[in-house]
Amino acid sequence: MNVSEDALAQELVSIVGKEWVVTEREYMLSYLQDETPEPVRPKAASNLILVKPISTSEVSEILKTANQARVPVFPVGGRTGLVGACVPTEPGVILSLERMKRLEIDRDNLMVVAEAGATLGDLLRACDEAGLFFPPHPGDEGAQVGGLIATNAGGVRAVKYGVMRNYVKGAEVVLATGEVLNLGGKLIKDNAGYNLLHLVIGSEGTLCVITKATIRLHPKSEHSVTVVVPFNGRHEALQAVQKILLSGVVPLAIEYVEPDEINLSAAHLNEKWPVQAGRAQLLIILNAESEEELLVACEKLSAACSEIGAGEPVLAETREEQDKVLRIRSNIYTALKPQLVDILDVTVPPSNLGDLMDAVERIAAKHGVHLPVYGHAGDGNLHVHVMKEEGKASDYVAKVKKEIYEAGVRLGGVITGEHGVGAIRTQELTTATDEKELSLMRGIKRLFDPNNILNPGKVIT
Amino acid sequence: MNVSEDALAQELVSIVGKEWVVTEREYMLSYLQDETPEPVRPKAASNLILVKPISTSEVSEILKTANQARVPVFPVGGRTGLVGACVPTEPGVILSLERMKRLEIDRDNLMVVAEAGATLGDLLRACDEAGLFFPPHPGDEGAQVGGLIATNAGGVRAVKYGVMRNYVKGAEVVLATGEVLNLGGKLIKDNAGYNLLHLVIGSEGTLCVITKATIRLHPKSEHSVTVVVPFNGRHEALQAVQKILLSGVVPLAIEYVEPDEINLSAAHLNEKWPVQAGRAQLLIILNAESEEELLVACEKLSAACSEIGAGEPVLAETREEQDKVLRIRSNIYTALKPQLVDILDVTVPPSNLGDLMDAVERIAAKHGVHLPVYGHAGDGNLHVHVMKEEGKASDYVAKVKKEIYEAGVRLGGVITGEHGVGAIRTQELTTATDEKELSLMRGIKRLFDPNNILNPGKVIT
Repeated sequence: MNVSEDALAQELVSIVGKEWVVTEREYMLSYLQDETPEPVRPKAASNLILVKPISTSEVSEILKTANQARVPVFPVGGRTGLVGACVPTEPGVILSLERMKRLEIDRDNLMVVAEAGATLGDLLRACDEAGLFFPPHPGDEGAQVGGLIATNAGGVRAVKYGVMRNYVKGAEVVLATGEVLNLGGKLIKDNAGYNLLHLVIGSEGTLCVITKATIRLHPKSEHSVTVVVPFNGRHEALQAVQKILLSGVVPLAIEYVEPDEINLSAAHLNEKWPVQAGRAQLLIILNAESEEELLVACEKLSAACSEIGAGEPVLAETREEQDKVLRIRSNIYTALKPQLVDILDVTVPPSNLGDLMDAVERIAAKHGVHLPVYGHAGDGNLHVHVMKEEGKASDYVAKVKKEIYEAGVRLGGVITGEHGVGAIRTQELTTATDEKELSLMRGIKRLFDPNNILNPGKVIT
Repeated sequence: MNVSEDALAQELVSIVGKEWVVTEREYMLSYLQDETPEPVRPKAASNLILVKPISTSEVSEILKTANQARVPVFPVGGRTGLVGACVPTEPGVILSLERMKRLEIDRDNLMVVAEAGATLGDLLRACDEAGLFFPPHPGDEGAQVGGLIATNAGGVRAVKYGVMRNYVKGAEVVLATGEVLNLGGKLIKDNAGYNLLHLVIGSEGTLCVITKATIRLHPKSEHSVTVVVPFNGRHEALQAVQKILLSGVVPLAIEYVEPDEINLSAAHLNEKWPVQAGRAQLLIILNAESEEELLVACEKLSAACSEIGAGEPVLAETREEQDKVLRIRSNIYTALKPQLVDILDVTVPPSNLGDLMDAVERIAAKHGVHLPVYGHAGDGNLHVHVMKEEGKASDYVAKVKKEIYEAGVRLGGVITGEHGVGAIRTQELTTATDEKELSLMRGIKRLFDPNNILNPGKVIT
């Protein structure tokens, strides 16, 4: 920072009020990190000021001030990300929109206008109360709307309904200069010029600050079932995924899991996973508009799986039972976390997922390490976990990751399909991306944020 | 052009061969216009050279040559657009990719890799033969893949499956410098940096030339029905749209039509429209994975419509009958065309469509003109037709359009939801868009095409 911290804090106080400016580090500890595993988590800088505006105009004033003073601003959401995208890695301002959390459901247009600080939990509850449904579910319900959009969050329900990008129809954003833009709207179709909205989605707080968004909803499906199907091995399970999708059944989610990790997660939660058969399993969530439709889908699903020689599918039908199964799946990460070094999210064409898993197995064998995998099998999105290895020199980590990225790219994939680039994958993005494409990205960054005050050091450097 | 036309033609011949360079105007007449109504159609410039490369490397060489010589390049597809986006409005090169039309279906990934010159008709046939389904149907099947993406084409099937943007997962594009970029891929999830792919989609040939694309497909639905429902009036019909969508039924298409225009189109085709009742009608296409699902959807649809006091729905069940109904709907434009001055595509939040129609009615009355409307009611996308008015001074055209745009924007809409900006709406885009947003768009144009050789004068000026 090239203004005195005190002077800046005073300016911020004059914008948002004394109560909403925090300068003592002990009161901002939870804002200094996200859910990135500790061994790869970036370190927060010193000399940080946390500020919590209540309105778009306050956000605008804050950015104007910071831009004039050339002070970095780090917008944070629920800090549930896995690549350190919101960690304040330089002295500057942490901008939390947690007080801006209004939600306005518009049933007539099947949309919600949400302020950036509303949490995923708030959003899901508001939709549920209105008899509506917000499909994406990227895990931690403490995530905030602004962050969901800034990271183009994915999660398990993306097979049928896609990721955040498919749901965001409009956004109010504040540029580094403090100027406010309204992109898109309550619109299903919009071809009025270049689509800046889609450029903002997934830009991880480096182009502008999202303050509000218009998000499409669905009517609530009353009929759903969760099925766990055991298979003899990985390739059988993945072959079944293709058969299911080709049969015309489009599940909400198709997750690939292996017994070791799913049982570990169940134990961690004091629960029991309902299926012990099979070296590989698929967890499939189906929803439908009627009981009849659900039955037809279940039959097609069973037929597709038994063609591959799957074991007996186990159905969870009550809401409680379905929630339990999803909770166990969602907590694999938590259960593995104490031993975790990094969680990758290499994504390949769905039909190449088996080859990617084979490659990961070879890499694990070559380096003599354990690399648990599970993933969003319907999306070609694999989570490989690099674990702590007792008594091993730590240089295996970089080697193993490099080889996994290379395998993913060789199979037509990208280094990140879900978690984004953040602070910890900028080098990998540079390595895996064409130089000209990088230069266009850098040009866009300069165009939006000429003084590089917005989340500097993230995504593109 | 600041090189001699002869020298340029010779360079182009050296790239693509003599056979594929056309310099005589009489052999390029069909490349000088698109489907924009004659009264507002932009005029093609003189001194044009038409070139037809066979490969991406030829496209790259052509662009490199043109960029070095600062010669404008006008990429054209099937020339089915309605805003003159591909009309060569300055002396330069017309670049047709019609020879690049390979299609490669990938059933395992439910995707197709299509070269830019493949037509919509080619694509639909190839998918059909593979038992797959490409949902968007933006009308004229002579449209080409490159153009569909460059214009983010919409059409009638967008309610359930969305517009082109939702289907394009990857693209090979050539920049003005001749550099080739591969954006995205056979990927369902991709968060590796800023999303340049979505910036290219809808950029109407002004940022780069699309040479190839990866497009997502669906399994073919075997079960479908088309329903025409008559209503007492416009507001009842539009209210029914909301009820249908809230009931959880998601039709492929929900089209709003009025008897005058639909009967005109039927007569034009020597056909008969199956429903004469009602001052307003909805044409609804349902598809489903099973007969049971289709039945449930039909019942919910009927219930929603009769709540509003709709007349008896008429069902078209055979493929032939369904095709006929859709053909009559799709030809309203053709039937009106001889008397047409301009077709607008103002798009508003779906719940405001009735207000927009009321506004259009008031504008028609005020100016004493006829403004036939129909539209994609499920998408809030209304087509207003400005007609020739016998014995009226032509200044009503500009006034009427201005008032319609203003009404659309006032109702939370955009000046174009579907047809794009092209050559004839650049002024309107500038008027309706925030200055800062325009300056970002201009910056993006400069970043991609510093010498402004790609489709100059279109979209953003």
